[in-house]
Amino acid sequence: MNLKELAKHLSLSQTTVSRALNGYPEVNERTRQRVLQAVQATGYRPNRAAQRLATGKAGSIGVIMPSSPGRDTDLHFSEFLSGLGEVCVSEDILLVVHPSRPEDEEATFRKLAASGSVDAIFLAYTRRNDTRIDLLKSLKLPFVVHGRAASDGPHDYPLLDIDNHGAFRDAADLLLQLGHRRIALLNGPDYLTFAIARRAGLEEALKSRDLSLNPAHCQEFAMTEENGYRGMVRCLETEEPPTAVLCSSMLLALGAVRAINQRGLKVGRDISLIAHDDVFPYLKPENFTTPLTTTRSSIRAAGARIGERLIDAVARSTLDQQQEVWPVELIMRASTGPAPTELDISRQQRAG
Amino acid sequence: MNLKELAKHLSLSQTTVSRALNGYPEVNERTRQRVLQAVQATGYRPNRAAQRLATGKAGSIGVIMPSSPGRDTDLHFSEFLSGLGEVCVSEDILLVVHPSRPEDEEATFRKLAASGSVDAIFLAYTRRNDTRIDLLKSLKLPFVVHGRAASDGPHDYPLLDIDNHGAFRDAADLLLQLGHRRIALLNGPDYLTFAIARRAGLEEALKSRDLSLNPAHCQEFAMTEENGYRGMVRCLETEEPPTAVLCSSMLLALGAVRAINQRGLKVGRDISLIAHDDVFPYLKPENFTTPLTTTRSSIRAAGARIGERLIDAVARSTLDQQQEVWPVELIMRASTGPAPTELDISRQQRAG
Repeated sequence: MNLKELAKHLSLSQTTVSRALNGYPEVNERTRQRVLQAVQATGYRPNRAAQRLATGKAGSIGVIMPSSPGRDTDLHFSEFLSGLGEVCVSEDILLVVHPSRPEDEEATFRKLAASGSVDAIFLAYTRRNDTRIDLLKSLKLPFVVHGRAASDGPHDYPLLDIDNHGAFRDAADLLLQLGHRRIALLNGPDYLTFAIARRAGLEEALKSRDLSLNPAHCQEFAMTEENGYRGMVRCLETEEPPTAVLCSSMLLALGAVRAINQRGLKVGRDISLIAHDDVFPYLKPENFTTPLTTTRSSIRAAGARIGERLIDAVARSTLDQQQEVWPVELIMRASTGPAPTELDISRQQRAG
Repeated sequence: MNLKELAKHLSLSQTTVSRALNGYPEVNERTRQRVLQAVQATGYRPNRAAQRLATGKAGSIGVIMPSSPGRDTDLHFSEFLSGLGEVCVSEDILLVVHPSRPEDEEATFRKLAASGSVDAIFLAYTRRNDTRIDLLKSLKLPFVVHGRAASDGPHDYPLLDIDNHGAFRDAADLLLQLGHRRIALLNGPDYLTFAIARRAGLEEALKSRDLSLNPAHCQEFAMTEENGYRGMVRCLETEEPPTAVLCSSMLLALGAVRAINQRGLKVGRDISLIAHDDVFPYLKPENFTTPLTTTRSSIRAAGARIGERLIDAVARSTLDQQQEVWPVELIMRASTGPAPTELDISRQQRAG
């Protein structure tokens, strides 16, 4: 049934029916009720745009997709989106994905909120003292932040994060217990809070043994296979190369393993490696030639959980205020072993 | 400036301004023109929903994201979406992503079209005799099909595809010229037309030398690393194992290489391998321990091109009717070499 048929059925003009559905004040309440009853009785589905004007709800969650020609796809983003999608498919919610150049992001958030296209928003890739969080607070839309503006509280906004600091502190502690003293870090970009928290976790563990992170062994960049390879090559070329390395993503680990193998070294014997595993289904740590020890937390599960929280906030017309921080598992596999002795290392160097 | 302020500025009622913007017939043309001029002069941005009712355009492209709890993220989908996003960011177009269970896809297309949320749609993952194409034709929205319902024409719908048949025929020809006679195929799901076309390309090349594809050497499944590994293991366990393999994705190749290495065989010497490269930026064929020979076509470029065509069709209010088929490059690297002799093979088998 379309608008015309519905109007005929009610013996009203199309304009009146449309006004009633759109909430115009000049349609009296009795007519309005008649129209709404007919809508229910006939199963007429008003155009989504009209429906939105009537209900004030868009049935959509807004997502900013960092995008620009030449910018690489971010697998972490895709995996998060899959989790969000998994929840939305059950609730019949659309995702309104707004591709945005990173420098236009604040303007994009404002535009999304003003457009009425979305009921809720989420923010990812948090930076230290992230000004976008204040912007989101001012928009009066339900939102959840994936991450934190700084790893130490208090936080007065809704968030979901994992314990990045604790994860990398525990991973480093394990390596220290195995006798490693020179631990490298292949990390995400240095302005993102998850990377800052992971570095701080490693530094805390080193400091507890009066050690510190060699700046030449700390490489921070976009988390690609290629950067992992290059970063590991640079670390191995230093005067006193590391005997262990922490990698902030499976892709960095893939590249690091390539660099290690290329030098004729063996993961788990010559170099210990622990990677953070976001649980990409297509790149599993147990499938590496030497299965990788990991800190594990599913980024897809985080997407699904944020989706649930946003949908719930919209349904209840409230602002979500939860601060949720997930612990991270440390899973032992074959890529971590005792630190090689100085004798082992000089043998390696002769062979290299 | 909001609606109230705009109305005050024009000395009109809010209802009249809103009706003028929404195209209601009872507002006279002179008033309507005054309102539109004021909108331009003041920079007032009407609510997107209202704007849509006025212009009849949503400023959005609809995308169906295959989704269900437990279903793995599809990297090919993510990469395509990045290409689409790259074009949309320049044109200020939103992507309305509708997560959908694969079995609900036709209903989802109908719902998207009826909702007025999107101006154009694209269809991917084409199947043989795909009934969804007839559905799209009936919806009267601009659309482009990524792929073809069958690899042989004629096609009476707008499409963009790559020459899957030619790519795998040429890749197989190269292997045949190198003396290979037993060529395996690790392929995508057997109901998708790209996979059907690639198998047909291989079969055509084999047939031209009076050879045929051993059914035990043809493995068709979701294109994950794990399936690549398992499929390759199964091929290598056959009585007469293949000396070469074609892989329909870099992920399948990643798994196949793992299986080959695990058996102590060397890619390019004991087993030749050619992979189809969708140009994932994070998994490059030149970065494999033995760099991979590939058939190459960027799936991100396809996403960008489909985005351009859809935006153009919406802007010109026409239906796009182009059939565009891209050739595929064959790029030689170290993973392809002469077929091993029978002596080589029996040596391998003793070693394995």
